[in-house]
Amino acid sequence: MLIIKIGGGKDINWDYVCEDIHELQSRGEKIIIVHGASEKRNEIAEKLGIPTKTVTSPSGVSSVLTDRPAIEVFLMAYAGVVNKQIVEKMQSHDINAIGLSGVDGKLWQAKKKGDILVKENGKTKLVKGNLTGRVETVNHQLLELLLNNGYVPIISAPAISHENEIVNTDNDWATAVTAGSLKAKEIIYLFEAGGLLKDFSDKTSVIKNIDKNKIDEFMDSAQGRMKKKLLGVKKAFELGVEKVYFGDGRIKNPIKNVLDGKGTIIS
Amino acid sequence: MLIIKIGGGKDINWDYVCEDIHELQSRGEKIIIVHGASEKRNEIAEKLGIPTKTVTSPSGVSSVLTDRPAIEVFLMAYAGVVNKQIVEKMQSHDINAIGLSGVDGKLWQAKKKGDILVKENGKTKLVKGNLTGRVETVNHQLLELLLNNGYVPIISAPAISHENEIVNTDNDWATAVTAGSLKAKEIIYLFEAGGLLKDFSDKTSVIKNIDKNKIDEFMDSAQGRMKKKLLGVKKAFELGVEKVYFGDGRIKNPIKNVLDGKGTIIS
Repeated sequence: MLIIKIGGGKDINWDYVCEDIHELQSRGEKIIIVHGASEKRNEIAEKLGIPTKTVTSPSGVSSVLTDRPAIEVFLMAYAGVVNKQIVEKMQSHDINAIGLSGVDGKLWQAKKKGDILVKENGKTKLVKGNLTGRVETVNHQLLELLLNNGYVPIISAPAISHENEIVNTDNDWATAVTAGSLKAKEIIYLFEAGGLLKDFSDKTSVIKNIDKNKIDEFMDSAQGRMKKKLLGVKKAFELGVEKVYFGDGRIKNPIKNVLDGKGTIIS
Repeated sequence: MLIIKIGGGKDINWDYVCEDIHELQSRGEKIIIVHGASEKRNEIAEKLGIPTKTVTSPSGVSSVLTDRPAIEVFLMAYAGVVNKQIVEKMQSHDINAIGLSGVDGKLWQAKKKGDILVKENGKTKLVKGNLTGRVETVNHQLLELLLNNGYVPIISAPAISHENEIVNTDNDWATAVTAGSLKAKEIIYLFEAGGLLKDFSDKTSVIKNIDKNKIDEFMDSAQGRMKKKLLGVKKAFELGVEKVYFGDGRIKNPIKNVLDGKGTIIS
């Protein structure tokens, strides 16, 4: 079983991703894809005149502030355009993909955050009514049902709260909890970089190996989104995952490459 | 087994729909929902400056002309916002719903129309590259898998062509083919009227019963969208369906009401 999280950047090469998945699947590997759609969300939000509101927590982690109109944009981009276009692409590579959001079959059940503390211009303030949540429970039976019948689930945010509201959720964290619920041992994160970079401005500074007990040491130098990814990875290890790969989703054989060590391995 | 097609109008009362479904499900009935999203599609298309292009065939049936930007709007409205908000609503009524488009798991496989003849200002002309198709094959095994595990599938267009492209498709026709593939005997169509009207301007002129062999007699007086619905119904009878109900999706107990004969029954 392999859980692969793929970022929402526009330079991800989905044909290359599909080629690798098709080969892995033909060897009997069960695969789950979790995908982002941040670029498409921002594009739609801008066209609709609903700009994405990003806030920063007191500890320096950035996230998107979500009200009901923002949830609609989220659904358009993640569950609508991007999810289904990935399914279309997979089908054209003879992979029987099924797209699901975390809302479907209560796949991703999240604890709603409600009010959150944000840091703005150096000051900390309370923001109410935020429709975001952290995934706590996964309907892994649904995923097993689909996997055992030859399907490749293509999953993305949003999630559903315990009060049955659609909530925005962090895909990286949700990926970790999903892996844990399925007792998966490995997660691959593909994005638009060669791996975790020692120096963000130097694209060749890929860190080869990270000790899973020393992830905190890399937290400070990590940029906003990467910080979240590392928080997800820490959670994954807590839940029994044994190996996490970070690698480049833009190049030929993206999955083979990370498995061969051409990226960052955390173990 | 009950297949219920629910229109995309804004006055459909989904709480009432859910109440009836919850009761039917608690009595062991297996239910599949097919939904529209035309109002939301038009709203998004207008906001994005991508107006919905409607064309009329030489025989007088209206349909939407679909290019790739239109497909994106279609995905936003149908597979994105509306599908997931219906799932959310169902979950809040304790119905374990799963939203699927026709693309997922190749649920709805369609023959792409490609070039179509349209009538414009009295003249007939050929329009090329139209991404629409008619559903021919249904992955009924996927629906049976979900139904047998307690889920309520919530399905909508688009479909996937035999060449693995996302294509716009007529939901009413697809509903008929889905019913046929599952050997379902009954279909309910709920929309924003009391049933099929003898006189479109008189809301009380609901036709109580229609002989399934005399549907053609009602085709001329039917308005654009209703014409399509009747074409779907004709197809359904060809495929083994025995009874079709038309009824009001805006009122309390919409499903119970149509089953009790408070709408139009075609048999």
